[in-house]
This record gives sequence, C-alpha cells and structure tokens, in this order.
Amino acid sequence: MTMFIPQRILVAPSGFKESLSAVEAAEAIAGGIRRELPGVRVDIYPVPDGGEGTVDIIAARTGAARRTTRVTGPVGKPVFAEWAIVDDGSGGRTAVLEMASAGGLRLVPDDLRDPGATTTRGVGELIAAALDEGVDRIVLGCGDSGTCDGGAGALSALGARILDRDGRELPDGGGHLIDAVSIDASGLHPALASTPITLACNMHNVLTGPRGVARVFGPQKGATPERVEELDAAMTTWARLLEGAFAPPVDVARGPGSGASGGLGAGLAAIGAVPRSRFDVLLDDSGAGGPGGIGGNGGAGGTGGLGAGDIDALIDAADLVITAEGAIDFQTPNGKVPAEIARRAQRGGAPVLALAGSLGRGAPQVHDCGIGAIASIMTVPMALEDAVRDGRALLADAAARSIRLLLLGAAVASRSEERFREGLAS
Amino acid sequence: MTMFIPQRILVAPSGFKESLSAVEAAEAIAGGIRRELPGVRVDIYPVPDGGEGTVDIIAARTGAARRTTRVTGPVGKPVFAEWAIVDDGSGGRTAVLEMASAGGLRLVPDDLRDPGATTTRGVGELIAAALDEGVDRIVLGCGDSGTCDGGAGALSALGARILDRDGRELPDGGGHLIDAVSIDASGLHPALASTPITLACNMHNVLTGPRGVARVFGPQKGATPERVEELDAAMTTWARLLEGAFAPPVDVARGPGSGASGGLGAGLAAIGAVPRSRFDVLLDDSGAGGPGGIGGNGGAGGTGGLGAGDIDALIDAADLVITAEGAIDFQTPNGKVPAEIARRAQRGGAPVLALAGSLGRGAPQVHDCGIGAIASIMTVPMALEDAVRDGRALLADAAARSIRLLLLGAAVASRSEERFREGLAS
Repeated sequence: MTMFIPQRILVAPSGFKESLSAVEAAEAIAGGIRRELPGVRVDIYPVPDGGEGTVDIIAARTGAARRTTRVTGPVGKPVFAEWAIVDDGSGGRTAVLEMASAGGLRLVPDDLRDPGATTTRGVGELIAAALDEGVDRIVLGCGDSGTCDGGAGALSALGARILDRDGRELPDGGGHLIDAVSIDASGLHPALASTPITLACNMHNVLTGPRGVARVFGPQKGATPERVEELDAAMTTWARLLEGAFAPPVDVARGPGSGASGGLGAGLAAIGAVPRSRFDVLLDDSGAGGPGGIGGNGGAGGTGGLGAGDIDALIDAADLVITAEGAIDFQTPNGKVPAEIARRAQRGGAPVLALAGSLGRGAPQVHDCGIGAIASIMTVPMALEDAVRDGRALLADAAARSIRLLLLGAAVASRSEERFREGLAS
Repeated sequence: MTMFIPQRILVAPSGFKESLSAVEAAEAIAGGIRRELPGVRVDIYPVPDGGEGTVDIIAARTGAARRTTRVTGPVGKPVFAEWAIVDDGSGGRTAVLEMASAGGLRLVPDDLRDPGATTTRGVGELIAAALDEGVDRIVLGCGDSGTCDGGAGALSALGARILDRDGRELPDGGGHLIDAVSIDASGLHPALASTPITLACNMHNVLTGPRGVARVFGPQKGATPERVEELDAAMTTWARLLEGAFAPPVDVARGPGSGASGGLGAGLAAIGAVPRSRFDVLLDDSGAGGPGGIGGNGGAGGTGGLGAGDIDALIDAADLVITAEGAIDFQTPNGKVPAEIARRAQRGGAPVLALAGSLGRGAPQVHDCGIGAIASIMTVPMALEDAVRDGRALLADAAARSIRLLLLGAAVASRSEERFREGLAS
C-alpha cells in the first residue's frame, strides 16, 4: 500500500470581508497547510474580485507603481484612494482603479447609509487622474460599492453637466436623478475618447427592473423600502436620459453589468467604457482577455505581465486547489470567487476544496459547480465579532484540519483498496 | 486511475451532553454519511461511558428487560431510575445500573447545587432493588454525578448506619461526614456478600488529595471554594472510617476509581464492589473483560451476549471509523470516548475521524492518540443554545461534509500518484 500525498497545492482565496484581505487569507491557509505538510510546495494566488483589495492584489502581483489620489468620497468628505499603474512590459501603461476606494460601502458611516444620497463623484475624479497621467487604458474594478447613483457623480466629475428642467445642475445622489431632464456632455474630459476603459463587473447586475440595483442592493446599502422604489424610478429616468444623450451601443438599462456598483456600469458604459466579466478582466492574460484584459504572458519581465494569466497554469500544476471566501451559500455559484476557481479547475480535473468563515443556507449547492468539499473555520459556538477578530488563526487551523481530513481520506481509500484485493485473492 | 471508496464505515460516538444521546448522535452521523455514500454499509455502535445513557445503550443493544424503580433522588425528592436486566444467554442475569439515573447532576436543580448536601442514597436503593430481584451480578455505571458523599448515602440505603460521636445516624450529604466516627455494618443487605458488583469508572478519579474529587469536581457540581475544602476534609475522614470498618483490600482514599461519582467508588469498594476501567466493563466481552465484564460472545442468542464484544470486530471490519463527542479538547486523551475508540482502532490500523460540537483548547493533541482527523459541527457564528438545539442537523451535515473531504483526499492522492507515474514515464 502506497499512499501519495500532495506535492503541490494552490491557494487561491478571496478576501474575508471586514476580517482578512485575500493576501492575508492566502497566507493563513498556506501556514495551516505547512503545519501538516512541511515539505509541500504551496503556490499563493490571492484572487481579486473587482471589489476591495483588487488594486492591492494586482499591484503586489505585478510590482506596479502605486498612486494615491485625494478624491470626493461617497458622502462628500475627501478620501484617499489608492490605484496602480501597471507596465505591460512593452511600454503600455494600464491604470488599475477600484471603485470601492472612492465610493465603497465601507466609506459610508452607518448613520449616513442612504444610497439615494451617496455619490460616485470620487470614482470620476479617479478616472480623471488616470487620464491626466496619460495612461494607455484603464481597468476599473467594480464591487463593494456604497452608492446607487447610476454613475451620475462620476460623469459629473469627468465634465458632464446633469441638468434639471430649469437648466440647473442637479446635486449629487441618485435620489435626485428623478428630476434630471438633460445632460450637457460638451465638457467631457478630452482623453476619454482615446483611452479605453474596461469595467471589471459582476455581469449579473443590471440597472433597472425587478432584478435592478435599487431592489437587489438598495436595502443592504441602507435604503428603506420607499427609498428603493424612488431609486428604481430614478434609475429608469436616468437610463432613458443616458440613451438620449449618448446613444450608447449597449443597453444601459438592462444590459449585463449595467447595474455594477449601483449603476456606475450604466453611466460609464454610456460614455464608452466596456463592462466585462470581472474574472475575465482580472484573471486572464491580455491575449485571452481581449482588449480590456490586464497583463499578459508576453511581457518582457518574465513575470507574465500582470501575472494574472498564471492562474490556469497554477491550477493545472496543482494536486489540490484550496479556495476560500468569507461566506459560502446559495449565492456562491453566481460568479463568486470559489465558483470561478472551481470552474477553471474543472477543465483539468484539479480537486477543489473551499474554506469559509460561514457556511450559509444552500452551501452544498456549490458542489454542483465543481467544488469537491467545503469546510467552515468555526470550531466552537462564538459571536461573529470574535470570528472576525480571530479570522487569521481560525482559517489557518481550518486549513490544517482539512489537510488531515484529506490525508485520512487517502488512507481510507488505501484500506478499501487493500480489502478489495484481499477479497479477490481469497 | 481507480479510486476506492469506503465500503463499510463504523459510527461509534459518545452522546453530546444536553443535546444528543449517543444513539441519536450515531443516527445523525449515519444519515449524513448516507447522503454522500448511499451504498455504503454503516455499522452503528453508540458508545456508553458509564454516565447518562449507559443503561439505554446497553438495553437497546441487548434487548434487555428494562425496569424502572422509584428511588430517592440526589436532593431527597423521589426520581424514577431506569435500569436493565441482561440475560447472558446461559441463564445468568446481570443488572445494569447507571449512577446518573439516581444521583446525576442533571437531577439537581440549579439552586440546589451543593455537592456537600446531595446524596447517593438512591443509588443504594437501586442496588438493593437489583439484589432483591436476585440477579447474579451488578454492573454500575459511574459518571455525570451530582454528588460528593463518598457513597455514604448508598451504604445507608444498603443497610449500614453511619454514626456520629453520640451514636446518632448522620443526615445525608457528604458535608456531614466530617462528624462521622463509626459505621455499623451489621444490617447490610445479605445478598451483597454473594453478588459481585462491578463499577464502570474513570479510573483516573481518586477520593482525596490534590486530585481528589472535592477539588477536581466539586466546583462544577456547585461547591464554593470553602465548601471544597470542607468536603476534602470530610472525604479524608470518611476514607479512614471505611478502612477501619471494612478493611477493604483496595486503597479507598487514593486507589484508582475511588473518586468515581463523588466518591461513590470508595464507599462501594469498601463493601466489596470492584472498580474497573469503564470501557473494559462496557465495551469488552465477558471473556476478555474478566468477572465484571458485561455480555460476551458466548451467548446463545447469536447477538454476542450484550453485543459489547463486537466493537473490536466492527472496527476491524471498517474502512473508516467515525467517533464523536460534544467537546474535543486537551482532556480528550484522558480516557474519553474518542480516545478509547482510537486506541482500539490503532491495533488494526483503522483510520479514525472524530467529530465534535466544539473543538476546544488543545484539540489537535488527540492526533497523538490515534485520531487521524477532527472536524467541528459548527458552520457559522452561533450561540451555544442554538448549537445544542440544532445538534442533530449540524452533526449530520458535518458527517456529510467530512465524507466529501475524505473522498476529495482520495482524489488528491490519485492525482498525486498519476503525476508521479507521469514523471517516471517521461
């Protein structure tokens, strides 16, 4: 009886919201693995999802130049947003921005959580900063937003004037868009025309209708039921206005990704930005990813551009892939990080384990999308705040326990095989 | 690549205190296993530990006649205690009693938790009932007691008179034993002399000294620090008195098991009962277990006497053994159910997984005693009372998740092996 132990494990987690960044999660898991398998090779690939931490992961992976720009935060107070400029190795420069750094829910104090009042103005300021820098293209990660203004604030910051029936500019906040009647686009930033912008989105999100942003995300951003209805009406008005003003080639009301980041997808798509599936943008190389992809393997530095294209090769080389997310539940199959990693792993048959802070309702549904097994980091009855505080240790311990279970599984299979052969022999 | 899945799994859990009996725990685990492996053979062996549920498990296993006897509870109010009479298949009858049914902590209301006041009188009444029934021998499970009277109440119920310096009988309760000066044993139940009594104990428990029952268990039974000191002194007095009155062949103060169930072990050992390691008594057949063992394989009924002796055969036949207990922590290696199951499994190399309601401090220490892997039933941050209430579903889900991890481990080993062979071939 010979039992083979894994020689190479890929750790590709998302961040654990309000507890661990993806990088921290990956390090914790790797530490737990090494406790049980000191000799194993562990590859680490923290997975960006467009939301918080995306810039940090990509900057770390590529060694990109980091910038910090002071912009208007979602409630009007200034915030310092970090972004990165990635060199593609042949002179091209890509600005990597993250919506959440300028308009994220985390930047909205609890007592100001009204998505009808918050603004994406800072996101527009961030885009303008990148344009002023003269980058060749822009990638904007969408996710973890605290806004629902249809990107109106961003367009304003980029030079558009959104006017009411009296020709006056509207105040910031999606709630006011119900009064919008025209857009004066004559002052838009001139570099927009020559600088491709790719939005890294969850393409399931649309601007209006029963699955529109106001209804689906409004409540978790702090909207009352009445506010949700107002905002949905405002988004419908806004979509009609965008169509009239820009005649965009895509459907800004119901097109895939139009609802990204509280409708930021719609507003930016109207002026030419291209919404694309976030993992295609953030994980695939430029060859496979099309014009908006980040990085690529063709770079001169030998690191494969952003290094993003490495994920499939790393999966293929692994005996085991461990992914993770703060929560795994019935929503996970809808394009969350563990589902995406499993989708890629299925191509080459790599076994996938997913660790989670919490296993919620419907968690076993993830097995249908290729996640072989799931495990929680919880060990005892405990309060959420304790779990969040101790996330790193809990995750490392869970990884170690899981490795022991996997090794035990190999031992069980060996024993079953041995019995089977004994049965044949006797 | 062929992957062998387990054909036969043994489920041998303890109960989960205040949540699931061992039988319920076993059924929950089996249900979870079958969810993932519908074709597998699952053997169920709920493991009695001498405490609550011991009679129920053994009666269910053997189809023994059940009796209910009204006895004096630990706080003086009557309780109905269940016991069983097991036929050994050749005419011999063994009474199986459980201390907890007559003097258990669960029978002591929170506001009366003072181990200096509670009594084992009901345990003596239960023994007397079995003697009156004319059984051939008695097995008494010790564990989960709410008393600390050195077995004085039991001896009184069996006919001994415990007297103070004025020749008056002492009231019930270990706290009074500091005043005991003599024992009149002339009225002891006559059948005691001809009926062997075996105590199924945790042999680590001793009556007096730094690791004595008052100090180790007093606080969890409700004793204040002062009460602990009083009780320890009373137990020392009591041990001296027992030695003088009965000249027992064993050390009733510091001998193994003398501290079982608040010193019940000492009191009964003084009148001839034999303390033995609980698992030797409850899990081994009469052949291997000596004169006090329960059951045996020699029975005519084809069920193997109590069926207790089957455990080692079931372990040996299993590809995987799953054990469980409410809590796994640094104390588990000290003779708790999962450690005992692992000890037995190690003889034949059966892989052991242990599931737990909570994985406490030092839980990974159990790997040193042969438990290959551990897993918690927790899935999300939750309160203890919710975990207790939902124990059955949580345990079933944990079993199902663990099976998936084990199968994934087999797949990982297969992939590692495949890679290894590819490497050799290329």
